[in-house]
Amino acid sequence: MNNINEWSHVFKLDPNKELTIDQLERLCESGTDAVIVGGTDGVTLDNTLELLVQVRRYPITVALEVSNMDSITPGFDYYLIPTVLNSRNPNWIIGQHHQAMKEYGELIDWDTFIPEGYCVLNPNAKVAELTDATTDLSVEDVTAYARLAENMLHLPFFYIEYSGQKGSVDVVKEAKAVLSSTKLIYGGGIETAEEAKQYAQYADVTVVGNAIYTNFKEAVKTVKAVKGGAY
Amino acid sequence: MNNINEWSHVFKLDPNKELTIDQLERLCESGTDAVIVGGTDGVTLDNTLELLVQVRRYPITVALEVSNMDSITPGFDYYLIPTVLNSRNPNWIIGQHHQAMKEYGELIDWDTFIPEGYCVLNPNAKVAELTDATTDLSVEDVTAYARLAENMLHLPFFYIEYSGQKGSVDVVKEAKAVLSSTKLIYGGGIETAEEAKQYAQYADVTVVGNAIYTNFKEAVKTVKAVKGGAY
Repeated sequence: MNNINEWSHVFKLDPNKELTIDQLERLCESGTDAVIVGGTDGVTLDNTLELLVQVRRYPITVALEVSNMDSITPGFDYYLIPTVLNSRNPNWIIGQHHQAMKEYGELIDWDTFIPEGYCVLNPNAKVAELTDATTDLSVEDVTAYARLAENMLHLPFFYIEYSGQKGSVDVVKEAKAVLSSTKLIYGGGIETAEEAKQYAQYADVTVVGNAIYTNFKEAVKTVKAVKGGAY
Repeated sequence: MNNINEWSHVFKLDPNKELTIDQLERLCESGTDAVIVGGTDGVTLDNTLELLVQVRRYPITVALEVSNMDSITPGFDYYLIPTVLNSRNPNWIIGQHHQAMKEYGELIDWDTFIPEGYCVLNPNAKVAELTDATTDLSVEDVTAYARLAENMLHLPFFYIEYSGQKGSVDVVKEAKAVLSSTKLIYGGGIETAEEAKQYAQYADVTVVGNAIYTNFKEAVKTVKAVKGGAY
């Protein structure tokens, strides 16, 4: 298993989208650090389990990004728990987490449950609508959330999420500049290896998601672009 | 200065309430670990500073519990920053903290700014109304917030606040049972030394506030009741 603190590139697979067996094999053997299973729409226990079983054929670290409690199932190496810092709805900040603590608190192994402080920035993304996020933020707003994540909440990860849109590299750079122990994750809109490289200059972890489904060949190339080596 | 991690008894003084110089001296020389300055109503920069200056005559640790950004002033040993975990209003969970990060983020010394995960439990208290807290909570709800404070948010303190009402000792006991690194603070309704002793069985830090203004003699006795010795 590849320790989460050493990740630099990950693929995010959506259980509600289709991949061929050959594609999945190429992703899992691409040299990426991990596969994250997660999505906003149509994530069910069934399709989550189906994807888990397929990925488990390969010796790769696999994490579930928990978007609803129904799709939580044993068998993943890590469980990533988003807390949406710029949500207007307390349920997405700590409400659902409180419910989870109430139901499963005693059982949770905190070495594998990893909270992520999310900052959702694409106003047109489904995740922004779902979480009622305030997306109209200045660079200073985003860096303030980064400081909050690190200094007040001591979250291990701060996640800049543009989901489907290429984010500002400058925002990523500035957020990184105020973080020291909390690691920075960037995800959103990466379609090419060159783009991945730009964000990876500043992000500790670069997430490639949609490109897997829209431009598979380039998606695979992002691994070397981020981790070094010819692509 | 008395390190915050070693506190077991503190007095909470309200800048909007009156104490004689003699009373203040007796509190500050009582053997308590610290004086917290804080309140819900009528806390201003003026009355906060006035109380700070008075307390500073004595060699006692003094902390400001920040209830609004206007009353923040240098000169305190610690700044306690409540995040109200059971609030329905995101402003009281992280919104105001985000604003503070934005304005003062670079300047904050995180060795002296201490976040506290509050659970506000007296429905009739002003603080419950102000923060729009869900106070109708079961023991399991409270312990779930305690777990959330420790495991997800890594807060150094979890504060069970009954503010003006004697809380359930059982709730305090159960919350303590699920905490290990996060320390438990109890405050609310303590009027006598005997009562203080009950909560101090389980709380790491016992806060005595109102009794200072309603039953001064007993308030002073709570120090020894909590810290040991005849009273």
